[in-house]
Amino acid sequence: MQTFFVLIKCALGATYSTAEAIMSEIEETSEVHSISGEYDLLAKFYLSHERDTGRFVTDTLQQIQGVESTYTLVAFNAFT
Amino acid sequence: MQTFFVLIKCALGATYSTAEAIMSEIEETSEVHSISGEYDLLAKFYLSHERDTGRFVTDTLQQIQGVESTYTLVAFNAFT
Amino acid sequence: MQTFFVLIKCALGATYSTAEAIMSEIEETSEVHSISGEYDLLAKFYLSHERDTGRFVTDTLQQIQGVESTYTLVAFNAFT
Amino acid sequence: MQTFFVLIKCALGATYSTAEAIMSEIEETSEVHSISGEYDLLAKFYLSHERDTGRFVTDTLQQIQGVESTYTLVAFNAFT
Amino acid sequence: MQTFFVLIKCALGATYSTAEAIMSEIEETSEVHSISGEYDLLAKFYLSHERDTGRFVTDTLQQIQGVESTYTLVAFNAFT
Amino acid sequence: MQTFFVLIKCALGATYSTAEAIMSEIEETSEVHSISGEYDLLAKFYLSHERDTGRFVTDTLQQIQGVESTYTLVAFNAFT
Amino acid sequence: MQTFFVLIKCALGATYSTAEAIMSEIEETSEVHSISGEYDLLAKFYLSHERDTGRFVTDTLQQIQGVESTYTLVAFNAFT
Amino acid sequence: MQTFFVLIKCALGATYSTAEAIMSEIEETSEVHSISGEYDLLAKFYLSHERDTGRFVTDTLQQIQGVESTYTLVAFNAFT
Amino acid sequence: MQTFFVLIKCALGATYSTAEAIMSEIEETSEVHSISGEYDLLAKFYLSHERDTGRFVTDTLQQIQGVESTYTLVAFNAFT
Amino acid sequence: MQTFFVLIKCALGATYSTAEAIMSEIEETSEVHSISGEYDLLAKFYLSHERDTGRFVTDTLQQIQGVESTYTLVAFNAFT
Repeated sequence: MQTFFVLIKCALGATYSTAEAIMSEIEETSEVHSISGEYDLLAKFYLSHERDTGRFVTDTLQQIQGVESTYTLVAFNAFT
Repeated sequence: MQTFFVLIKCALGATYSTAEAIMSEIEETSEVHSISGEYDLLAKFYLSHERDTGRFVTDTLQQIQGVESTYTLVAFNAFT
Repeated sequence: MQTFFVLIKCALGATYSTAEAIMSEIEETSEVHSISGEYDLLAKFYLSHERDTGRFVTDTLQQIQGVESTYTLVAFNAFT
Repeated sequence: MQTFFVLIKCALGATYSTAEAIMSEIEETSEVHSISGEYDLLAKFYLSHERDTGRFVTDTLQQIQGVESTYTLVAFNAFT
Repeated sequence: MQTFFVLIKCALGATYSTAEAIMSEIEETSEVHSISGEYDLLAKFYLSHERDTGRFVTDTLQQIQGVESTYTLVAFNAFT
Repeated sequence: MQTFFVLIKCALGATYSTAEAIMSEIEETSEVHSISGEYDLLAKFYLSHERDTGRFVTDTLQQIQGVESTYTLVAFNAFT
Repeated sequence: MQTFFVLIKCALGATYSTAEAIMSEIEETSEVHSISGEYDLLAKFYLSHERDTGRFVTDTLQQIQGVESTYTLVAFNAFT
Repeated sequence: MQTFFVLIKCALGATYSTAEAIMSEIEETSEVHSISGEYDLLAKFYLSHERDTGRFVTDTLQQIQGVESTYTLVAFNAFT
Repeated sequence: MQTFFVLIKCALGATYSTAEAIMSEIEETSEVHSISGEYDLLAKFYLSHERDTGRFVTDTLQQIQGVESTYTLVAFNAFT
Repeated sequence: MQTFFVLIKCALGATYSTAEAIMSEIEETSEVHSISGEYDLLAKFYLSHERDTGRFVTDTLQQIQGVESTYTLVAFNAFT
């Protein structure tokens, strides 16, 4: 499995509706957190190895109503 | 109680009407100051512990006329 | 009374000792909060009108052990 | 439980030793990921409600060898 | 008297008409300079002590045709 | 006469001694103000037309004890 | 041959269609990668020496549907 | 003669037409180069001493079709 | 194979010796280019799928003499 | 001939000595200007086509006493 995080800027006043849409409409979503700071959401996704992370962000995540911009953080290694 | 501050950018020329709306329409407001620098307002809020700060910022503060962007500073500890 | 806030960056690992020093050594301090985000502390001060805010920040606040940089937010108006 | 994430910049060439130290020396650690982009690590922590997140970051996390700077993202709400 | 400076970004091609409007329409104006660099104008104002600088910037300066954004520099002390 | 302004960052805790040195040691100084925001001082200088502003900043202003960095704002036109 | 890279920001949700258009419509394209971080695509082009890189970016690349902004990195030397 | 440079951001896809317009329509232009990096053009102008550089940038250069923003670099001294 | 790019800032005056060291000492290197702009080098690497990109950057690339900071761009998809 | 510009940050107080050294020690120098704004110098160089601009900046320009950092602007086309 590939693990990656995406910092998401939402339309003003739409952070929570956007987070709920991401959880309900995208099955690859592991967690979504509304966060303090410059971005509004931090989301964690799992994709099977052969899947293309970039296409997923573009064709799935960025199609969600309320998503204004995304910054992908690829997780190279998990120290659990 | 949770204490947190929000730096607020207002629509051009709307800083004071926005501040007055925040004070009058949002009971959780403790203080609002018009400030120098990059942002226009610094507001301080108190929420009871079980309340969700992110939802408050999104569903209440960001709905106020004149609020253009917000940057939440969570206060971990108050040294009074 | 003049009200102003100062965002403070502290030496790594010294945020809390710095906050305690500001509270105990500077009588003009109203509140100090450790905060999330780019800065470590948000402090609120009251100075009598004739006092020079700049000199206070330079000669008093910046002399506290652990203070690495400061960004002063002058409060023009308090909407209480 | 409080959930929060911290973006961590490490000393050059010390990302992995720092990550391992965080995992082994800090029991509140849930996950640590080495990540692409401007920061080197994204760490997730759980603290019991009465604990002070700021003090934890300052007195525990920032004391780990190799940690150069930290940016705390408080998680207001988890949409699981 | 309170002295303060405001860095002003003007609409493209409107720097000089904006400067002239500020001089002619705002009696508290001491000087306005068109400047090199990121901003277009540097203006100096004097307000009597009881006046609210923030309200002046919002309700007077930001109402001038051609003003797109402002960054207020409060002058704490003048070394003349 | 050439008019120009210089935003000056000072060594921590040295803003006022630096300002006093600039006033007393540099005759071309018109005004120096300690200011809020990212920089510590805003200074205004007058140079006769044939003088080289860049050399003045480098060989005179930057030699003053406490000056850490400078950002020159050339004033093209004064609307007095 | 001149080698250069261009970092490309695409319209939200259009990264892959933009990449495919660049590959199919621009014969000078060597590679296009969707990437993590602030930009969406990293593209590599070869132009014969007499060609004008700037004109190519402006008149060809920036005409592709979905390209919002470009940052050209000229490759001075390839260490293969 | 006054020498100064202006970094110019152009509308997407309009860099070359803008450059040609600057050359043909503005006689004070010495050189215009399309450049790599964040800006699109670097232009060099000569103005007689009594002319106001700021007004020239505002009333002449910024009126050229395709110019989106400008950053003026005043040349204090030429070491030829 | 995993493809990724790394933007590299080198010690002043050491760009070319650093590039040569990367080419000769790191077999996973595909290309290294000295580039214009804020960074000095753009390097392309191939790692087999099971390898950890983060560890490679930290334990191998960042150990090369002259490397001051790195910014990893993970390539999700290559449109060749 | 290749034309390119380099924005140069100099050690505090060393702008003019650095500029003079660049003029006298580097024959490829066409012009050097001390400039307003964030950088201290703007230099213009001509290199014959087969020369490597990156190596020139690294091995020649960055070796000059007083040069602290450089930002190369490649000139794609000159509109003279």
